[in-house]
Amino acid sequence: MSPFADSKDACVAALGEVALLEEIRSWLGDAMPPAPEGMGDDCAVLSRPAGNLFAADSLLYTRHFDDTTDPARAGAKLLLRNLSDIAAMGGEPRYAVMSAFLPPATSLAWLERFCRGLAGCARQYATALVGGDITESAEGPGFSLAITGQAERPLLRSTAQPGDYLYVTGSLGGSLRGHHLTFVPRLAEGRWLADRPDTRACIDLTDGLGKDLNALLREGLGAVLDTAAVPLSDAAREAATESGKPSFWHGCNDGEDYELLFTVDGTADPAAFERAWRGAFATPLMRIGKLRARGKGGPPVLDTAGRPVENLTGYTHLRA
Amino acid sequence: MSPFADSKDACVAALGEVALLEEIRSWLGDAMPPAPEGMGDDCAVLSRPAGNLFAADSLLYTRHFDDTTDPARAGAKLLLRNLSDIAAMGGEPRYAVMSAFLPPATSLAWLERFCRGLAGCARQYATALVGGDITESAEGPGFSLAITGQAERPLLRSTAQPGDYLYVTGSLGGSLRGHHLTFVPRLAEGRWLADRPDTRACIDLTDGLGKDLNALLREGLGAVLDTAAVPLSDAAREAATESGKPSFWHGCNDGEDYELLFTVDGTADPAAFERAWRGAFATPLMRIGKLRARGKGGPPVLDTAGRPVENLTGYTHLRA
Repeated sequence: MSPFADSKDACVAALGEVALLEEIRSWLGDAMPPAPEGMGDDCAVLSRPAGNLFAADSLLYTRHFDDTTDPARAGAKLLLRNLSDIAAMGGEPRYAVMSAFLPPATSLAWLERFCRGLAGCARQYATALVGGDITESAEGPGFSLAITGQAERPLLRSTAQPGDYLYVTGSLGGSLRGHHLTFVPRLAEGRWLADRPDTRACIDLTDGLGKDLNALLREGLGAVLDTAAVPLSDAAREAATESGKPSFWHGCNDGEDYELLFTVDGTADPAAFERAWRGAFATPLMRIGKLRARGKGGPPVLDTAGRPVENLTGYTHLRA
Repeated sequence: MSPFADSKDACVAALGEVALLEEIRSWLGDAMPPAPEGMGDDCAVLSRPAGNLFAADSLLYTRHFDDTTDPARAGAKLLLRNLSDIAAMGGEPRYAVMSAFLPPATSLAWLERFCRGLAGCARQYATALVGGDITESAEGPGFSLAITGQAERPLLRSTAQPGDYLYVTGSLGGSLRGHHLTFVPRLAEGRWLADRPDTRACIDLTDGLGKDLNALLREGLGAVLDTAAVPLSDAAREAATESGKPSFWHGCNDGEDYELLFTVDGTADPAAFERAWRGAFATPLMRIGKLRARGKGGPPVLDTAGRPVENLTGYTHLRA
């Protein structure tokens, strides 16, 4: 479905901002609380604490969705991307505000489906949509959503230690074949991990294991990656058939996996940890390596034979 | 200064996202606290409560600034617009996250000045910049900033009552001649108003008195506007000379005034209120009318002779 309307009557410019905001309010329904907590004042007035987590993520036409995307899925994805960040901190979501950049020709029918998809996702994950703003633009539609959440003991990236076991949820690669619109944010898993004293560090995979693993590896910290254990999705294998590249490459570099990559205290019993996980979740879990101390200038990621793992770049933004 | 670089080496695409984020961190300096509160994890981990206010506002090249705009002023404006919303609630700002939509050709020098202007403004108004995201775009640069704040007793729009006195700060109109980049958000005034029991309702003027006054006037509520008392800026008069329209028209419809429009209990003594204001602030204050009960379908705004005030539309967004 195209985000743009063929006739003037069917586009957002036919309404103007005030009437459009009223429509958006009705499309969001009870996913938006009544004013002054929901839309209707200069700021949302929150009825409970906003929480100790704060993040933002965006969604832009042609970059994150296109004419083949169900607009309801695109609306849900805007929130899901942010929920995946909350999940990686071991938190629960609370409040969100959305900025919309809308070309005047944006279709009202498209925007309604987008908003209803966003609202359905917000209800499902108990996130209150409390406000935002609209800017007329030439490109787009584009959206930015800022989210708050609460984590009693936030899971950080910087707390990874040499000797930690490295785990990943789900399977990786080929996300553009569908997963990027249908993924389930690992909120329950993140909260469970945050409650366990043996969990050390966590990140969500948005740009691919190849890039995001490096975010856990501060100076002096490296990883031994059991490349054969990296869980590859069927979509990664299909992508490999088309591209001629190894499916491992797709698993590391496609991005938009929205899985958790986390580490567990290396002195804990990994078998006991994995039993506890399987008792709690059906979500697949793979132990894919260990962290290690690394000398200055050494390769950050080695395979189990001690060779540097090549082609771990992940999705690279803003490259000419 | 153009937001775009002439040479490849001087644009954001020359760095890529990871190095660019490092640069942005250095430009923001101590306006961004160290990780995990500042940039560096999946979410910012806030060290104090985020507060009970939450809002977002945006800034887009050619719409809110152009090649003639000092990028430092544009960066400050992104935050100032949001601070004006916090001011209208009688709150103090706490935390902000920024989404950036950047064309690959965005100039690094331009973006550095933008970020340094934003950071200077954040330091001035004690707002911690704690994160955000970057999206590659074709249009822009465009930015959305989400802000949290705290107000013990938030000033709402919906609490205006018939009989309330109507006040406005500063002077109105002609903002594009400079005020839209140099305005001072009325944070101290908003907090002072929120502390007084006789303050009833408040809004900040972003689309012009003509439109924003209506946001105070729910069903059954109207206003008598003393049109001669509406404070017009010198810039409104200059704009009138050029446009041939009355300066009152510019005062009501230009928008981007970022002044406070508020109401005071009609049973209070307005002279005493105004003395207290002058004792606290040098900021100009004008009593410009009263609120009144309004019959169904009646004109929302009358002048002191009882005639409907015409041409009160304000700036209209998203009109074809």
